[in-house]
Amino acid sequence: MGQLTGNAVVGQSGGPTGVINQSLVGVIEEVSEQACIKDLYGALHGTSGIIQERFSDLSTLSRHQLDLIAKTPSAALGSTRDKPDQEYCSRIFEVFKKHDIRYFFYIGGNDSANTAHIVNMLAQNTGYELKVFHVPKTIDNDLLETDHSPGYGSAATFVALAVLGDDLDNRAIPGIKIDIVMGRNAGFLTAAAMLARRKEGDGPHLIYVPERSVSMDQFCEDVGATFDKYGRCLVVASEGICDVDGVPWTKKTAENLDVDAHHNLQLSGTGALADFLSVTVKTRLEIGRVRADTFGYLQRSFPGLISPVDAQEARYCGRMAVYYSAGPSTAGSVGMQRFGKGDRYRVETFLTTLASVSGGTKELDQEYINDAGNFITPSFRDYVSPLVAPLLEVAYIE
Amino acid sequence: MGQLTGNAVVGQSGGPTGVINQSLVGVIEEVSEQACIKDLYGALHGTSGIIQERFSDLSTLSRHQLDLIAKTPSAALGSTRDKPDQEYCSRIFEVFKKHDIRYFFYIGGNDSANTAHIVNMLAQNTGYELKVFHVPKTIDNDLLETDHSPGYGSAATFVALAVLGDDLDNRAIPGIKIDIVMGRNAGFLTAAAMLARRKEGDGPHLIYVPERSVSMDQFCEDVGATFDKYGRCLVVASEGICDVDGVPWTKKTAENLDVDAHHNLQLSGTGALADFLSVTVKTRLEIGRVRADTFGYLQRSFPGLISPVDAQEARYCGRMAVYYSAGPSTAGSVGMQRFGKGDRYRVETFLTTLASVSGGTKELDQEYINDAGNFITPSFRDYVSPLVAPLLEVAYIE
Repeated sequence: MGQLTGNAVVGQSGGPTGVINQSLVGVIEEVSEQACIKDLYGALHGTSGIIQERFSDLSTLSRHQLDLIAKTPSAALGSTRDKPDQEYCSRIFEVFKKHDIRYFFYIGGNDSANTAHIVNMLAQNTGYELKVFHVPKTIDNDLLETDHSPGYGSAATFVALAVLGDDLDNRAIPGIKIDIVMGRNAGFLTAAAMLARRKEGDGPHLIYVPERSVSMDQFCEDVGATFDKYGRCLVVASEGICDVDGVPWTKKTAENLDVDAHHNLQLSGTGALADFLSVTVKTRLEIGRVRADTFGYLQRSFPGLISPVDAQEARYCGRMAVYYSAGPSTAGSVGMQRFGKGDRYRVETFLTTLASVSGGTKELDQEYINDAGNFITPSFRDYVSPLVAPLLEVAYIE
Repeated sequence: MGQLTGNAVVGQSGGPTGVINQSLVGVIEEVSEQACIKDLYGALHGTSGIIQERFSDLSTLSRHQLDLIAKTPSAALGSTRDKPDQEYCSRIFEVFKKHDIRYFFYIGGNDSANTAHIVNMLAQNTGYELKVFHVPKTIDNDLLETDHSPGYGSAATFVALAVLGDDLDNRAIPGIKIDIVMGRNAGFLTAAAMLARRKEGDGPHLIYVPERSVSMDQFCEDVGATFDKYGRCLVVASEGICDVDGVPWTKKTAENLDVDAHHNLQLSGTGALADFLSVTVKTRLEIGRVRADTFGYLQRSFPGLISPVDAQEARYCGRMAVYYSAGPSTAGSVGMQRFGKGDRYRVETFLTTLASVSGGTKELDQEYINDAGNFITPSFRDYVSPLVAPLLEVAYIE
């Protein structure tokens, strides 16, 4: 059997990251090395661009443009929140046939892997030769199979630096500060805040992740005890933090607010969660200075705060998707396996099935959460340190 | 009359900035050059450290430590929110006499200038020879007399970068995004967001500052018109944004929320403002994807995002305060005057009276606000560009 020859489509999907364009440029670079792929179409806004046949010709981009795109955060092709069903995927498949698309590279999270999976099944069922490869991407780091996901290291760098700065701020003007970090179901990003603690007494003093529930009573008790000990307290909590009944606090926040019917307000956002926790702590502990911030969207697209390792790995995963596609495999998701610790850290990629990645998401191992459920264990530092940019050394006067 | 000889105190006050420690190191360096000053005491947590006699010996710091401290954001000596009255200043003055303090350097905003002013008056009235110098600091850039304040350029760099990244994010997944920036009374920091707009169609599309009131109707109309034109809209608004009746929106937000009496909630924070604006726009314009973020404390102490010019000028102001103190002047606040434009930009310091700086704050000139009151004029770019770090070049695919 000869090698499959035809055109290719690459698309980006889901929430932007700092390095999703590294993966895109990796795909573009490797496509130019593989003779079996003729033209590479860039789908604008992921699958929605495919079904609308909104494509960009990526072959005209200069080396300089590619370098700029790679360094630019957020999806350069545009992204989409569409979650294609069978019907939607049939339309994708029709467009592929029309343009003789034989290679499909989709950069995204587990929903994107699922889209790729459905399209792949459709092709197999109708006997249309198509190769479908998923390139992992998520700041949440919750993809199955891979050791970690491109995008996580840069977002984790942002969180660690933000918390480091905020701890210095809280040290200068002592009080209670609560920071809300992204990650509705997975605590990886929140856990990275532990890197900001340099020595005993430094913040963050408390970290809460969605994988371990906590009651409001316990939360306030933890904060109060820390404040009594250090005269201040820096708390980092995931937006997905749950009460002991399993209900996320964001939901309880909304329920705790009587809403003006005329204005139809529903303050269930994370901004409201920050304010709610702040007011609750202030009221219960009777402490004057309590503040809360929600890091929000800055976590995923902040220009210039990129982890070099993350950028490199994202590029590598993009290249390897194309490389695998030129081999005997017809479909799969690129995963990373880790070898070595500390300075000897390195990754190698492997190919796993689309189904295994699209089927669910990963949570933070319980071994990374301390017994009290209010901090992250040292073993997590070993896991996360190689993935983030080196933190700045800081100093203050005592 | 011979030169006044004795010990010195340096302190930091008010909200931390990215470069307030540059000014501290500038003071320490220049003190070592001036023979008239014997020991330099670092007051921990500003005036509160003075009255409690909590001092740190700054002469023991190594060159390496000084370099680290200078690069560390947030007040290395600790800061304070105390606003000393006459009685409080008398206690400061007593401590000064006890330790033969003859030089007082206070790094802070206009409240700090006021503290310095009162202490200086007390010394004059009792015939105690004391030299009192204020070093400007504020991310709000609202100090009188000086062209701009150390601390502003770095915070403005953070805001411009954050908005640049957020615009790329909003471009990838189009919708309405509202970003709330610090600055209750002055719009300088919010106005810096205009740097993120590179060309027509890029965000931010709308900018609102406290110096120009806007009704909720007008706000929603602006947002709707932009969304109709571009299919998306990035709004940057100051936390101090006011309605046409002059009442800040944060206050209206609180009033619009019925509060659960049992929990005693008062969601008047800026997180609630972001959520409130988001829900209002969503409801009135019937647009699905509306998000809002509050940049919060990250704006003032983010490690590594420092404007080199700001760092240099902060150091320079610290040094010059000591330099002036060794001359004939007995008191004053260091100001910066700007010369030249673009590449020829440079500053020189001057000395102004403590009273003239402590007396009030500065607002954004109306000439920097467009006629519609929803964006910033090009002349502001000329003002702010030399003060911030160069923005990253970015690229995307159309």
